[in-house]
Amino acid sequence: MADTSTCPPLERQSVQAAHKRIKEHIRRTPVVTCATLNTLASTSQSQRCPSSGPNTASEPCPHHGEVSGPPVKFTARPNVKLFFKCENQQRIGAFKARGAFHALGRLIEVDGIESVRKQGVVTHSSGNHAQALALAARTYDVPAHIVMPSISTPSKISGTQSLGANVVFSGSTSEEREAVTSDIMKKTGATLVPPYDHPDIILGAGTQALEFEEQVEELISHDHDLGVAGRKRLDAVIAPIGGGGMLSGICTALHGTGIKVFGAEPQFEGANDAELGLKHGKRIETVKTMTIADGLRTPVGEIPWSIISDKGKCAGIFSVTEEQIKAAMKLAMERAKLFIEPSAAVGLATILYNEEFRTLVQREAGDAGWNLGIVLSGGNTTVEAITKLFAVSEKVAERAGGKVTANGEKVAVNVPG
Amino acid sequence: MADTSTCPPLERQSVQAAHKRIKEHIRRTPVVTCATLNTLASTSQSQRCPSSGPNTASEPCPHHGEVSGPPVKFTARPNVKLFFKCENQQRIGAFKARGAFHALGRLIEVDGIESVRKQGVVTHSSGNHAQALALAARTYDVPAHIVMPSISTPSKISGTQSLGANVVFSGSTSEEREAVTSDIMKKTGATLVPPYDHPDIILGAGTQALEFEEQVEELISHDHDLGVAGRKRLDAVIAPIGGGGMLSGICTALHGTGIKVFGAEPQFEGANDAELGLKHGKRIETVKTMTIADGLRTPVGEIPWSIISDKGKCAGIFSVTEEQIKAAMKLAMERAKLFIEPSAAVGLATILYNEEFRTLVQREAGDAGWNLGIVLSGGNTTVEAITKLFAVSEKVAERAGGKVTANGEKVAVNVPG
Repeated sequence: MADTSTCPPLERQSVQAAHKRIKEHIRRTPVVTCATLNTLASTSQSQRCPSSGPNTASEPCPHHGEVSGPPVKFTARPNVKLFFKCENQQRIGAFKARGAFHALGRLIEVDGIESVRKQGVVTHSSGNHAQALALAARTYDVPAHIVMPSISTPSKISGTQSLGANVVFSGSTSEEREAVTSDIMKKTGATLVPPYDHPDIILGAGTQALEFEEQVEELISHDHDLGVAGRKRLDAVIAPIGGGGMLSGICTALHGTGIKVFGAEPQFEGANDAELGLKHGKRIETVKTMTIADGLRTPVGEIPWSIISDKGKCAGIFSVTEEQIKAAMKLAMERAKLFIEPSAAVGLATILYNEEFRTLVQREAGDAGWNLGIVLSGGNTTVEAITKLFAVSEKVAERAGGKVTANGEKVAVNVPG
Repeated sequence: MADTSTCPPLERQSVQAAHKRIKEHIRRTPVVTCATLNTLASTSQSQRCPSSGPNTASEPCPHHGEVSGPPVKFTARPNVKLFFKCENQQRIGAFKARGAFHALGRLIEVDGIESVRKQGVVTHSSGNHAQALALAARTYDVPAHIVMPSISTPSKISGTQSLGANVVFSGSTSEEREAVTSDIMKKTGATLVPPYDHPDIILGAGTQALEFEEQVEELISHDHDLGVAGRKRLDAVIAPIGGGGMLSGICTALHGTGIKVFGAEPQFEGANDAELGLKHGKRIETVKTMTIADGLRTPVGEIPWSIISDKGKCAGIFSVTEEQIKAAMKLAMERAKLFIEPSAAVGLATILYNEEFRTLVQREAGDAGWNLGIVLSGGNTTVEAITKLFAVSEKVAERAGGKVTANGEKVAVNVPG
């Protein structure tokens, strides 16, 4: 990776320069809207909840049976129109392509293509960053070594291999991964391209925010009804935070534009390290969680933290439960027809189910409302994984009455389907 | 429905007029591309098949264990770039919104809004057409009665009801549906809006082809690599055929442009009535099939047949197996990140797995290749239905070795996951 001393400063202009550099290699992913999800997000959770009256939205309530402590009043009713940035349709199926192309491009600028081709690049990643670096390396004809835990998603392993990378397996703790990685560096002289904790990665990941800004303005200028009345641009963006490369990139890209940036993360087993870190004024350095949002299991990196902990750049971090992530993922698929991985669903889950965030939006946006951008960070999951993920809820539905055929047709019990 | 004697002729200009009429009510759905699917479609099936050598694409072969009769040589290797028209992201989740808005708009033009509001409209449909008519009726403040078989997909029933329509249940044979429908017509004076066999529906459904044409040219003009070398527009389109409203609309829209139009349908239990009808030179009037492509279970209607059986308008119909539909649906989701219903997958299944079609494309397109448009007609399925649909294949995978966690991570058997 290019030495950080050679890196451009972490500011909007550098993100614009990064965008120019990677433009030809990445996709300007679509931005889409969904009327049903706008309605759901703009309806109070109590009204949406099947056990508290007429359920206008016909969606199950992801709170029931899990709210503990003092009763929460789900009364917030923010006025929002949602815009989804479909980085699930980015090359390799996730936003990571942006950072990888930028980081490798910069490394080549600094060290020269001959030297980079001779030494190669290496990274450790269980998923999207691995495929992203493999793709960028193939594009520049540079050898890539990818250290992956042997328990990684099979589709991610085969995806990385089919891009021509040399996949090396390791154990799944960070110590085990790092040992294998430094071994490869010693043997080959390969340069490490870390997944998030580097300015070049951050600047690359932030480029999506520039497109998002433009695309929402384009959409609203074509059809005013897509936005809240009278507003012609994004008011705020919410994006997932794991290592924080993407969120800090978006904060950097949008700083000074007046567009607020929020982060969303899973709560499960302390995966909400960024939220907790902000509360205690100190970065949390280790996280051990098996949240279904597998892209968000890592703690926030040092450089991302320096940006995210700056109130002037990041307006807040909110977290959601596993059930809320699943409910949002299901809605994104069934209603907006977008195939996303669990990690990509945390932003939508937050505006739908996090009452604290919903209250904040209602207060800050007022009657005028907000055009809220939601980053769908990736779509690298499989039908098999989805089948597993939703198997339990389905069994519950079956017990609740009636079998369902392969097409979802309801068949009375005891009648051959 | 407007009397057919008042209908515009079935030609391209009428589709253009229809497009103007409905433009403000429908979505100009996105057109997307996917490099992996281009590669798969342009690789011979033998090379793709895991049991005949290196499996470059790491996809299961949907032929194994089901090819009977004389051995087929899967050697065709057409050169194609695929463009997907995402009507799964159309309003109500399917192309049907186009026909419904056009038919109701025309009815109002002819009969006057007062009269239409007084009498209302009625249709019988198990799915997407029901929701489409309900939406159009709500938009024009017209009462809508929808006759649905009581075994319909629950999400489709609730979708139709939440759009304000009066849902009336019936048995699932066409006789039972029609009896209930004519009962409603007698009682209320409502006008029947049939799902496909009417010029106004056909012209409305065809409007997507005009957008498709334009959008592919726009995409290629921005990025030449998206198309096959040297060609700047669509060469051919393949679309699903059930009742034939959409396919005949597309044939009508593209007639005279030089863009060839093909149809794709399921083979299961004689669902390929259009293909068989063409072979025998006679429309097949009844079909009884439970193909997973539930939108394509109906026989081709009379008016659609008059267009589709015209060689100058429709270049051919091809069919695919249930396994091939499932395999294509899985690829559309996992690779292109598009959430589609089984009916929408038949076009992709045909270019990937129907050797006769692949051979034809190779022959006609030659080395230059084709830009092939694939219509993804709808996305109205649920996670629950997908779980059921793929449950069997998943059990097979489990037997083949290893458990898979909710994230698709592979865990060795006997080790707690």
